[in-house]
Amino acid sequence: MEVRTKAAVLYEPFQVGIEERDVPALSPDEVLVKVKAVGVCGSDVHYYQHGKIGRYVVEKPLILGHECAGIVAAVGKRVNRFAVGDRVAIEPGVACGTCAHCKAGMYNLCSDVQFMATPPVDGAFSQYVVHRQDFVYPIPDTLSFEAAAMAEPFSVGLHASMKVGLKPGQRVAVMGMGPVGLLTVAAAKAFGVTEIYVSDVEEKRLAKALEMGATHVLCADRENVPERIRELTGGIGVDVAFETAGNPHALQAALFSLSRGGNLSVIGLPVKREAGMDIPFIVDNEIRIQGVFRYANTYPLAIQLLSNGTVSVESLFTGKYPLEQAGEALERARTDKSNSVKVMVYPNGF
Amino acid sequence: MEVRTKAAVLYEPFQVGIEERDVPALSPDEVLVKVKAVGVCGSDVHYYQHGKIGRYVVEKPLILGHECAGIVAAVGKRVNRFAVGDRVAIEPGVACGTCAHCKAGMYNLCSDVQFMATPPVDGAFSQYVVHRQDFVYPIPDTLSFEAAAMAEPFSVGLHASMKVGLKPGQRVAVMGMGPVGLLTVAAAKAFGVTEIYVSDVEEKRLAKALEMGATHVLCADRENVPERIRELTGGIGVDVAFETAGNPHALQAALFSLSRGGNLSVIGLPVKREAGMDIPFIVDNEIRIQGVFRYANTYPLAIQLLSNGTVSVESLFTGKYPLEQAGEALERARTDKSNSVKVMVYPNGF
Amino acid sequence: MEVRTKAAVLYEPFQVGIEERDVPALSPDEVLVKVKAVGVCGSDVHYYQHGKIGRYVVEKPLILGHECAGIVAAVGKRVNRFAVGDRVAIEPGVACGTCAHCKAGMYNLCSDVQFMATPPVDGAFSQYVVHRQDFVYPIPDTLSFEAAAMAEPFSVGLHASMKVGLKPGQRVAVMGMGPVGLLTVAAAKAFGVTEIYVSDVEEKRLAKALEMGATHVLCADRENVPERIRELTGGIGVDVAFETAGNPHALQAALFSLSRGGNLSVIGLPVKREAGMDIPFIVDNEIRIQGVFRYANTYPLAIQLLSNGTVSVESLFTGKYPLEQAGEALERARTDKSNSVKVMVYPNGF
Amino acid sequence: MEVRTKAAVLYEPFQVGIEERDVPALSPDEVLVKVKAVGVCGSDVHYYQHGKIGRYVVEKPLILGHECAGIVAAVGKRVNRFAVGDRVAIEPGVACGTCAHCKAGMYNLCSDVQFMATPPVDGAFSQYVVHRQDFVYPIPDTLSFEAAAMAEPFSVGLHASMKVGLKPGQRVAVMGMGPVGLLTVAAAKAFGVTEIYVSDVEEKRLAKALEMGATHVLCADRENVPERIRELTGGIGVDVAFETAGNPHALQAALFSLSRGGNLSVIGLPVKREAGMDIPFIVDNEIRIQGVFRYANTYPLAIQLLSNGTVSVESLFTGKYPLEQAGEALERARTDKSNSVKVMVYPNGF
Repeated sequence: MEVRTKAAVLYEPFQVGIEERDVPALSPDEVLVKVKAVGVCGSDVHYYQHGKIGRYVVEKPLILGHECAGIVAAVGKRVNRFAVGDRVAIEPGVACGTCAHCKAGMYNLCSDVQFMATPPVDGAFSQYVVHRQDFVYPIPDTLSFEAAAMAEPFSVGLHASMKVGLKPGQRVAVMGMGPVGLLTVAAAKAFGVTEIYVSDVEEKRLAKALEMGATHVLCADRENVPERIRELTGGIGVDVAFETAGNPHALQAALFSLSRGGNLSVIGLPVKREAGMDIPFIVDNEIRIQGVFRYANTYPLAIQLLSNGTVSVESLFTGKYPLEQAGEALERARTDKSNSVKVMVYPNGF
Repeated sequence: MEVRTKAAVLYEPFQVGIEERDVPALSPDEVLVKVKAVGVCGSDVHYYQHGKIGRYVVEKPLILGHECAGIVAAVGKRVNRFAVGDRVAIEPGVACGTCAHCKAGMYNLCSDVQFMATPPVDGAFSQYVVHRQDFVYPIPDTLSFEAAAMAEPFSVGLHASMKVGLKPGQRVAVMGMGPVGLLTVAAAKAFGVTEIYVSDVEEKRLAKALEMGATHVLCADRENVPERIRELTGGIGVDVAFETAGNPHALQAALFSLSRGGNLSVIGLPVKREAGMDIPFIVDNEIRIQGVFRYANTYPLAIQLLSNGTVSVESLFTGKYPLEQAGEALERARTDKSNSVKVMVYPNGF
Repeated sequence: MEVRTKAAVLYEPFQVGIEERDVPALSPDEVLVKVKAVGVCGSDVHYYQHGKIGRYVVEKPLILGHECAGIVAAVGKRVNRFAVGDRVAIEPGVACGTCAHCKAGMYNLCSDVQFMATPPVDGAFSQYVVHRQDFVYPIPDTLSFEAAAMAEPFSVGLHASMKVGLKPGQRVAVMGMGPVGLLTVAAAKAFGVTEIYVSDVEEKRLAKALEMGATHVLCADRENVPERIRELTGGIGVDVAFETAGNPHALQAALFSLSRGGNLSVIGLPVKREAGMDIPFIVDNEIRIQGVFRYANTYPLAIQLLSNGTVSVESLFTGKYPLEQAGEALERARTDKSNSVKVMVYPNGF
Repeated sequence: MEVRTKAAVLYEPFQVGIEERDVPALSPDEVLVKVKAVGVCGSDVHYYQHGKIGRYVVEKPLILGHECAGIVAAVGKRVNRFAVGDRVAIEPGVACGTCAHCKAGMYNLCSDVQFMATPPVDGAFSQYVVHRQDFVYPIPDTLSFEAAAMAEPFSVGLHASMKVGLKPGQRVAVMGMGPVGLLTVAAAKAFGVTEIYVSDVEEKRLAKALEMGATHVLCADRENVPERIRELTGGIGVDVAFETAGNPHALQAALFSLSRGGNLSVIGLPVKREAGMDIPFIVDNEIRIQGVFRYANTYPLAIQLLSNGTVSVESLFTGKYPLEQAGEALERARTDKSNSVKVMVYPNGF
C-alpha cells in the first residue's frame, strides 16, 4: 500500500509550507494513523521562531507537531493491538526498549528515543503518520480527538506528580499557568490534592487555573508569591512546588514556598541556562529538587482521567486551524500568548 | 546529687576560657554522661572564628563540641535504658518527639530540636553533660570513645546515603575529603558501593580517601573533575554525587558528573548563599537534588559499622588535646587544615 | 482542679454499668477533653461479648470506646497547641515517642503505646478523658463531632492506602463493606482512584459502598468475586486489593483478584489465626502482601478530607445512644449487623 | 551462515539424548553464542524428573539449561553491542519490551517472555544458542565462564534484595541453603548487611553458608529456628527474612523470625500450593510479604560483584560434566543433594 500525505513543513524560521510526501512503508510493529487533531506546543513555536532548541537544530525541512490523536488507517503485519478504524492517542516519543533506562522503566531517559517534531524526526502536522504500536493507545468514543491530544502535555504534569510521589493531604504550588502548568494543576487534583496555590502574571490564565482545580490564585506581578503562600499556609509553606514557567523568578518563588522537607519539581526550561539557587535553604530544609523530562508510563492514566470526567480540558482550546494554516496557528501561538492557551491544528479537516 | 563540671567556654571569637559550672539536675528521662572524647567539627571552628553561623549567633558564653562519647555517671528516675557505668555515644540533637516531622520519622527537621553547641544550647567540651536517654546509645567495649564520637559525622554520610537510596552497583562520586567527605566514602562502601570517585585539592586527604574506600581519586586543582569522571565511567557519569565541600565549584563538578536520572546529594554549606545551577541539565537529565541536614535514625547503624570492622576511623585522628587546651584544639583545626582531619578533645583526660 | 466523670464500664462480658469516677490530674502535656461523640467499633463489641481480643484480656473493669471527638475543657501547664473550648478529634493511641519505631515514623508499631479501650487502658465512653496534646487535633466548626470521630476508622483506610502507595490509575478492590471497608473505599477515592470494585454479602452495605465511591459492587454470596473482577478488568485483575472482612474466603478472593505485581493489603483480623495462602500464585505473580495495623500520621489528612467535602460519612451513622445506654449501643451493634453500620454514643448528651 | 549444534535433549522424564540440530538463523538484533558453561538448576532437575512444572509441560523434546555463559560466535546485522569473540553471560529470559510491565521496568512480569529451558523454549545444554543482544552482557577476562553462569541464580538473590529495599544495619535471615539461598546470603552481604542468620538441615550447606557471608548458622533439624533467632537478636527478630527452601516449615520459620514491620521475601516454590499463614501475626506486626519471581535489571550488578571480588562462587561448584553427560549431571543433581550444590555442564569441553 502506498500512501501520500499532505504535511506542513518548517523550512527555516517563520517559513512554513505545505508539501505532499510519501508515507514510509509500515514496519511489522507499526500502525498508520490518520491524524485528526494536533496541539501546538511551546517547543513547536520555539522551532518555528528560532530554528532550534539547545542542541536540536532544524537542519532539513521538518514537520512540527507532537500532541496528537487520530484513527488507525493501516496496520503492520505483526500488529496485534489495533485494527483499522480504531480511535487512538499517540505518545510521540518512541524509545528503544532495550537500553538500561528503558529496561528500568525510565524510557523517557532513553538516549535513542525518536521523538516527533524533534529534529530530525518529523511530527504530526501531517494527514498521516507512522508510529510503533506500543506507543499508540486506544481512546474511547466519548473522548474527542482534541482532548485525546492533550494526553501529551497532561502526561508531563502526571509524570511530575509521580516523580515527587504526590499524595492527598499535601499542599501544592504550581508556578506558571501555561498549558503545562494548568494541566499540572489538573494532575495534582487527580492525585487527591485539595489545596493548590498557583501563580501567573496573566489574570485570564489564573481564571482558567480555578477551572482546572486551583484553590488559591496569586498574581506574580502584584504579590510576593512565596511570602503570600507562607502566610496562607500558616507559616508552613507547601509540600510540593512545581515550576512550569521556565522563569528564574518563578523558580525562586517555588523554592521559597516550600516547607521543611519539601519537594521542588522543575519542569520549565528557562532561556538562560544558569539560575541562582539558595544552597543553605536547600540544605537546612532538606529540600528535594526533581528535574522532570517528558514522561513515561503516563498515557493510560492520562486517557482514563480525560475520559472519565476527572479532568476537563475543553476550556484550554483557544484556536482551531486546518493543516493548510499550520503556519498561522504557530504565528497565533507565538504572538497572542495572553489569549491563547492551546491552539489546535486539524490535518484532516475539523 | 549536685555535680560540678569544668568546661571550655567560648566568650567571643577566639576567646575560650575554662569555667567550673553546676550541672543541671537530671529530669526523669535524662542521663548524666562523663564525657571521654569530643571531636572538633567545622561548625565549632566557625563559631570560634566568627561567633555565628547564619542566624545562629553566640550571644552568651557557649560551650562548643557535639561529637562525643563517654560513660553514664548518673540516671534520672525513669531511665530504663542505661545504668551507671555504661559506655555510650551521644546523639547531640534532642528532638521534641511530638511535632509532625518527628512523628513522620524526620526528627532532624524538628524545629524545636535542642542541638549541642548550637546557640544557646551548650555542648560537650565539658566534663559532664546531661542528655535525654533516647538520644544516647550503648557502645561495645571494643569501640574506643574517639571512634564512638565519630558516629556523629559518620551519621551525616549515612543519612545522605539513605536519602538517595544508595545501592550496590551504583557509581558514586564524593566531592571534598574533609571528615564528612571521608566518612561519606566510608558510608558508600558500607552500602555496598564498589566504584567511588573522590576529589579534593589536598593530596594528603586523597590518600586518606583511598584508606576509607575510594577507588579513584581526582585532584580538583589539576583535573577537570566531571570530565575525568565521565571518561572513567565510559561516558556515562555517576549515579550519585555527594557534595561535602561547601564549594560552588565542587557543586558544579558534582552536578556535571551525573548520569541521566542521577542524584546529587548536597551536604556542604557554602559561604555564599547562592550558587548557579544549570537548569536545563537538571531538567533534560531528570536529575534529583537532595539537600541533607544532619541525620535521623542513624546512630545504631553508625555504631554497628564502627564496631564490627566495616569502617575504621583510626586514621582520621590528627591531634589530641585535654579540656584545658580546647582553645588550642580549635585553633589547630582552624589554621592547619591540610594536616588536620579530626582534632579531638578529652574532657576527662586521655 | 478536681473533675468527676460518669463513664460506662464493662465488668465482664455483657455486663456494662455506669460509674462516677475521678478524672486523673493532668500532666503538663495533657488536655482534658469533654467527649461529645464516640463511635462503637467492632473491637468494642468483641470485648463486650468475649471479654478479650487475643492476648488482651479485660481483667479489671474497662471503659470502652476509642473513636471520639469533643471539646477541650482544661489544659496542662505546658500545653501550647490548645485552649479551653477548642473542638478536637482524639487519636486514641498515645505512642512513647522515643523507641526505634516511633523515631522512624512508624509509631503505630510502638510497643509501649497506650491505646484507649485496650486493656488496661480506659476508653471514651466517659464524659471526660485525659489525653496527651500531640495526639489531639483541632477540627473546624463545620465538622460535626460524629464525623470527627470517624477520623479513627477512616485513618485505617488512609494508612492502608499509604502503605501500598495507592495512586490514581490503579484498579482497586475492597472486600468487606463494614465501616472500615466503606471508609477504605472513601480513602481510595480520595487518593484519586476511579475504578473501585467492592464485595460484601449484604445488599444494604453494597448500596452504601456506592455512596462512598465504589464503582462496581459484587455480592460475595452470589458471584465468584475474583473471577468476576478479572472479567470486568479485561482479564488483568486489580492493582490493589484491600481485605477488611477478617474472613479467609475474602482473603482468598482478594489475592486471586490481583494482577501480576499486585498488592494485597490485609486489614481484617480473622477469628481463626491461620489462613491458607497460595504460595506459587504469590511468587509467580510477584504479589506484595502488606499487613496493616492501625495507622500513623493520618489524622490531619482524615480531618481535612472529612471537612472539605471530599468524603461524607453522614450515611454511616445508624444509631444514636446517650452514655447511660452504652450497653444498648454495644448490644445493637452486636446483634443487628445488617442494619447497623456505625452506632454512636454521646457521653454529654446529643 | 549455517550452523549445526549438538544438544542434550529431554524427551520424557529421565530420557535425555544427544542430537545434532540446525541453529536458527540470526535475526538482526541477535547474537550466536558458543556456550562454555551451564549450571544445572533445580527447575532443570524438576523437568528431568517430572516432565513439567505447574502449567509448563514438556510436550516436545526440550533442551534444558538456562544458567549460562560463553563466547559470541556471530552477530546479527543490527548488533552494535558485541563483536565475535566477546566473552558474555546470557540472561535467559527475553522479554517483549513493549507491554505495560516491560515499560514500567518489571520485565520479569512480562507475559510474553521467552525463557530458556521453559517449554516450549529451548535452553543452553547445546554447543550454540541464539539470543537477543540486549539480554547478553559482557564479562571481563578475569571472570570464569562457570562464575559468569552464576549471575543467573545470584540475580534471584539480588532481585529479592532490591524488592525489599535491603540496607546496611538490617538484620537478615535466609532459610534454605541451596544455591539460591547461598547466593541470597552473598547478595545480603553485598548490600552491606553484617548480621545474617541462616538455616538448613544439612551441615555441609551450613558450612558453605559461612563461606558466603552468613554470621550465624542454625540447623533446622535440631533447633527451633524462629525462637533461636529471636533469642540471638535480643527478642527483636530480623528485619528481613528470605525463604528460599520452598518448604512450608521454612516459610513459617521465616515469618515468625521477623520483627514488627519486618519483610518476608518468598522465593522458594513449595510442592503443595497452599501454605498456612498466621494472619493476626501479619496484621499486628504490619509484616510485608513480597513474592519474588526471577529478576530484572540485575545482570550488570551480578557480573560486577562476581568480578570485583565481592562475591566468590568457586566453592559452589560440585561437579563437572561434558555435554554428552548432561543426563548424568541431571541425575547427580537429583540424587546426591547433600553433596551437590551446583553441578555444571560444559557444552564445548572443559
